[in-house]
Amino acid sequence: MAQGNMPGYFRSSDSRDVNPDLEAERKTASFSVERLTTMLDGGAENTKTRRAVEAVIHSDPEFNRENQYFQSQNERYEAAVRKSVHFKEKMQQMGWSENGPEITYFYRALGGDLAFNVHIVFKNSILALGTDEQIAKWIPLADKYHIIGSYAQTELGHGTFLRGLETTATFNISTQEFTLNTPKISAMKWWPGDLGRSATHAVVFAQLYIKGKCYGMHPFMVQIRSLRDHSPAPGVIVGDIGPKMNFENVDNGYLMLQNINIPRENMLSRFSEVLPDGTYVKRGSDKINYLTMIVTRVQIIGREVTPMLMKACIIAIRYSVVRRQSELKPGDPEAKILDYQTQQQKLLPLLATAYAFHFMTAYLHEIYNKGYTEIKQGNFHLLPELHALTSGLKAITTECSTAGVEICRRACGGHGYSALSGLPSLYTKLAASCTYEGENTVLLLQTARFLVKCFVAVHSGKPSPPSIAYLFSMDSGKCQAWTKMDFLKPDIYAEAYRHRATRLLGNAATKLQALVQSGAEEYEAWNRCTVQLVQAAKAHCHYIIMKNFIDTVEKLRNEAEIQKIMKHLCDLFALHGIFSYTGDFLHDEYMSGDQMDMVTESYLDLLAVIRNDAVPLVDAFDFTDESLNSALGSYDGHVYRRLYEWAQKSPTNQQVNQAYENYLKPLFQNALSKL
Amino acid sequence: MAQGNMPGYFRSSDSRDVNPDLEAERKTASFSVERLTTMLDGGAENTKTRRAVEAVIHSDPEFNRENQYFQSQNERYEAAVRKSVHFKEKMQQMGWSENGPEITYFYRALGGDLAFNVHIVFKNSILALGTDEQIAKWIPLADKYHIIGSYAQTELGHGTFLRGLETTATFNISTQEFTLNTPKISAMKWWPGDLGRSATHAVVFAQLYIKGKCYGMHPFMVQIRSLRDHSPAPGVIVGDIGPKMNFENVDNGYLMLQNINIPRENMLSRFSEVLPDGTYVKRGSDKINYLTMIVTRVQIIGREVTPMLMKACIIAIRYSVVRRQSELKPGDPEAKILDYQTQQQKLLPLLATAYAFHFMTAYLHEIYNKGYTEIKQGNFHLLPELHALTSGLKAITTECSTAGVEICRRACGGHGYSALSGLPSLYTKLAASCTYEGENTVLLLQTARFLVKCFVAVHSGKPSPPSIAYLFSMDSGKCQAWTKMDFLKPDIYAEAYRHRATRLLGNAATKLQALVQSGAEEYEAWNRCTVQLVQAAKAHCHYIIMKNFIDTVEKLRNEAEIQKIMKHLCDLFALHGIFSYTGDFLHDEYMSGDQMDMVTESYLDLLAVIRNDAVPLVDAFDFTDESLNSALGSYDGHVYRRLYEWAQKSPTNQQVNQAYENYLKPLFQNALSKL
Repeated sequence: MAQGNMPGYFRSSDSRDVNPDLEAERKTASFSVERLTTMLDGGAENTKTRRAVEAVIHSDPEFNRENQYFQSQNERYEAAVRKSVHFKEKMQQMGWSENGPEITYFYRALGGDLAFNVHIVFKNSILALGTDEQIAKWIPLADKYHIIGSYAQTELGHGTFLRGLETTATFNISTQEFTLNTPKISAMKWWPGDLGRSATHAVVFAQLYIKGKCYGMHPFMVQIRSLRDHSPAPGVIVGDIGPKMNFENVDNGYLMLQNINIPRENMLSRFSEVLPDGTYVKRGSDKINYLTMIVTRVQIIGREVTPMLMKACIIAIRYSVVRRQSELKPGDPEAKILDYQTQQQKLLPLLATAYAFHFMTAYLHEIYNKGYTEIKQGNFHLLPELHALTSGLKAITTECSTAGVEICRRACGGHGYSALSGLPSLYTKLAASCTYEGENTVLLLQTARFLVKCFVAVHSGKPSPPSIAYLFSMDSGKCQAWTKMDFLKPDIYAEAYRHRATRLLGNAATKLQALVQSGAEEYEAWNRCTVQLVQAAKAHCHYIIMKNFIDTVEKLRNEAEIQKIMKHLCDLFALHGIFSYTGDFLHDEYMSGDQMDMVTESYLDLLAVIRNDAVPLVDAFDFTDESLNSALGSYDGHVYRRLYEWAQKSPTNQQVNQAYENYLKPLFQNALSKL
Repeated sequence: MAQGNMPGYFRSSDSRDVNPDLEAERKTASFSVERLTTMLDGGAENTKTRRAVEAVIHSDPEFNRENQYFQSQNERYEAAVRKSVHFKEKMQQMGWSENGPEITYFYRALGGDLAFNVHIVFKNSILALGTDEQIAKWIPLADKYHIIGSYAQTELGHGTFLRGLETTATFNISTQEFTLNTPKISAMKWWPGDLGRSATHAVVFAQLYIKGKCYGMHPFMVQIRSLRDHSPAPGVIVGDIGPKMNFENVDNGYLMLQNINIPRENMLSRFSEVLPDGTYVKRGSDKINYLTMIVTRVQIIGREVTPMLMKACIIAIRYSVVRRQSELKPGDPEAKILDYQTQQQKLLPLLATAYAFHFMTAYLHEIYNKGYTEIKQGNFHLLPELHALTSGLKAITTECSTAGVEICRRACGGHGYSALSGLPSLYTKLAASCTYEGENTVLLLQTARFLVKCFVAVHSGKPSPPSIAYLFSMDSGKCQAWTKMDFLKPDIYAEAYRHRATRLLGNAATKLQALVQSGAEEYEAWNRCTVQLVQAAKAHCHYIIMKNFIDTVEKLRNEAEIQKIMKHLCDLFALHGIFSYTGDFLHDEYMSGDQMDMVTESYLDLLAVIRNDAVPLVDAFDFTDESLNSALGSYDGHVYRRLYEWAQKSPTNQQVNQAYENYLKPLFQNALSKL
């Protein structure tokens, strides 16, 4: 608690009026914030449902996140379990279904601060890989949390390269059982969520051995803890992997298996089965499982990554019109920091990026649904394209958003370093997304492999998949802009991005071919081109996102005001990309230095234009104060008062200072006689 | 604790042998690691002293950091105070002096994980700003920790812009006292270290008022807590600002003052005094105080920033030869991840950067000492140059190192996200350095202002300060390289960097002049050029660092093997810079696209060369395992075993799982009858 009496200026701390500097920004909006919010939500009905869910969540003290920044790893985990169990009850009470829209809004409202996220993956893996009997046995139990499951794939020594996993499952015909083992330290399961402290069961991936022959990776249902007292099953060593950069709400765990016997029925057998006599039977194609990976990546972009970037933009931009620093014009009051060009240059391209990623998500859902329909009908030809596209876009969006959140954090100066700003935890959480569900460099190289394959195919006369056909059209070889205004034409900048992606892919693929022709082994040649292949994959993704932004803006014909500001954001997004990678566009003289100067001028001009609508543009994201959980970012802009009030709740202000009692008190006594 | 019996492969966990993959890397070193270490330490005597200090520290259980990753903010603070007090005793015991070399090595060994860092600033401010009497009164008490002081400058609403500070100190002739006040929320002191829970005193900066007239910022000695029982002094409201991204060892605090009266003698009066009748007297020049700021920045680079980048490189590079992933050559065992070009491209330029920054520090000490001597003699002409140089270099080194540590962290994949890797805390700690002691963008603009001033002066015929004279020499306007080998010539790349810095400064300064000539007000013109001015300042700093690397390598003539590998690193540092900012060199056709392709090829070739010495190059930094405190980075390379063993100590494995008891147990009972 505060030590001493509070001065008068704290008495009005419950006032609900808005900081006048922030209020002024809202009065001059060039568009209706509510209309834009509705558009972002995908319709007024959705906005209504979302706000109703938020009202339910935020009025329930069980979901309060106020103390989150003061909690230990243990406390975060316990709170997450409590909230998750409470949420199950709430859903029943409210009549919300597992697949309803409310779930998405619920996660959004709580910032994903729950337990049992991998339990969902556990369930999905049973649904995807289990037989109808297996589904009927396990899913009802999992649905009601009567068991909690983990998805145990990653090992201490193996993540990305699944074929390298070392856990074994050996079939014994005599007992009709599989024996699961962890043969060495590096084979220990490590990282699976919900495993460290919660799970009773796990879908364990292991190399299947029958009569000494290895059949590769298969999924097995293993009980790991007692349902009676939660003690580890005999032969199971299981625990928590300890502190992480964030995600304290998740009990990531480790698992060692020593001669664990499970019945034959516990191998998930939709696509392959071991018969009682040890015969291995494969059935159907498991290609459809790629869909799980694809849909997971689309969800990561839409539910986790983009919202976190949006939140960081809201916090940093609102703070930047409340915070004043230095005289811009000598003699004037100190200026809002958003009036400095360097601050605009940090934040406004990120605001444009958040919009770009949001629109990208809508597009991904569209093409995913199209692909899903075809694949369900047994037509798999879209799969490689979808896989390559979502891999690259997952990498780009997580990388840019993570970097972006950190730029927002630093743009808030010292206060951005306080946990109470909400920004450090956004960063430490989002940073994980660059690694999970496919390490970004690995993913970009998968995209690149697909692009190179298509490059070779097209150059031998075969057709190109539609999403990358643009890479193989002709251009004039020179940018057709003559004034800085020309660079506000989508045709001009789209063509520049196209040219760049085409050139980078062409160069990398040509180098690869040349190395092979000069005698290098294919794997070696590939390795020696990977730095450039990553560049090509990024340029491709950058084009796709930018082009989709252009297409989205075009469709806004009936919303003139919104279309106008979205056009500005689209221009900013595109020109910021050119400004950030000038060399890519100058390299083969597609652009001249003079043209690049025009890009720079147009880009800097746009910053000043968008600055005027910056606050309404982040308001439109419509995140509640409770969801932002930021002393700097609240709607009312009372940042200093809130920092102070929140700091009072810190345990460092509420506990006896043992360091003083034990170490400092005896020292300070010495000064008493002298002062 | 681990639940269950441990399998056999854990029995040899105390074995001291080295992982064979790591050992193999050391056998092929092209140079003597010990000789390089000695060189980095600045001589064999220093290496000896350093290792002796490390032996003392690491053998003392009081300095153990093993549990650091499991501690709460409170526990971190208490441990830091305990260690600091213990260190004072240790110093006396060992006969180490406050200004001896041991202190530096002590901080290095403990990773700066101590309390009372701002207490040192408090002391230095008394020494710099106090009269001889004030020094005699306060310093002996502070030296023995009989008082602990904070340096209270920053306020909730004001950091960078000191003139904007709002705390007031009003002189009353009748009582011969100053009355200090915090007139509004934004005037509350916020962030000062050692203030939240420890300090008894503070040097408080406040606007001095005498007879209604403001005389600007002055320093006042204020007692804020009782020496008897540590309660806040009457009228003082003081506490901890709560959790931060890191620095839990520091009790950053807040302070409100309500009519606090202090005697006239408590204004630190070396440079200005208030006489009993209210007359304000200024004496001497306080320019010398800039030296404090300058030396602080040099120390930040040398003691905090570069060592953290080195540590991250050690951890990531050692791990990258122990970790194996995927088949590089089909059929071969999984490859060391450092054999992938993309991994080399992430880590090896950072290794070169760590060396570049280390050499830069040596250079900065040299020119600082030169400047100090002159300034002590009353010759201040070097001050602006030193200030501009250290401002820019502080910004560049903190920004690059922070980004570099995060690249290292992600290059370790999932395990880099574990706190036990040591990498998350390196990042969250180093990230603060981009903001403290001058926000980086503000600092770069200070450098730019100096450069522009010199640009104008030189173009009106005046001489240039020596460190930037290179900006004003002539060049041929075209890069003189014809083959990729030419780009391994320091003359060639130094000239390219020179040309780039010159062009960027010239463009920004010219734009600035043009805007003013076309009628823009000066402040407005400056603001509209700041994005480009920052680029120019960065290019200048980049040149300085690269040029100093070249000069350092040249001086190594008597160490042929070390000179050879340092030359490779210097080349890599320089070419990586060109590869990362291609547009800067292509813009005015100083380089052609073909030349840039040569740069790329030379750069990629170098990665493969340096990869062979990567482990010896990080070994040479000679950080102890205790100092690294990383499960991934230890000298012996037993990463998986250590991750497992350290995880056992986590509180999440040692406490009763209340979440299970309270929420899950009742649910799991339902499954008992069904499974």
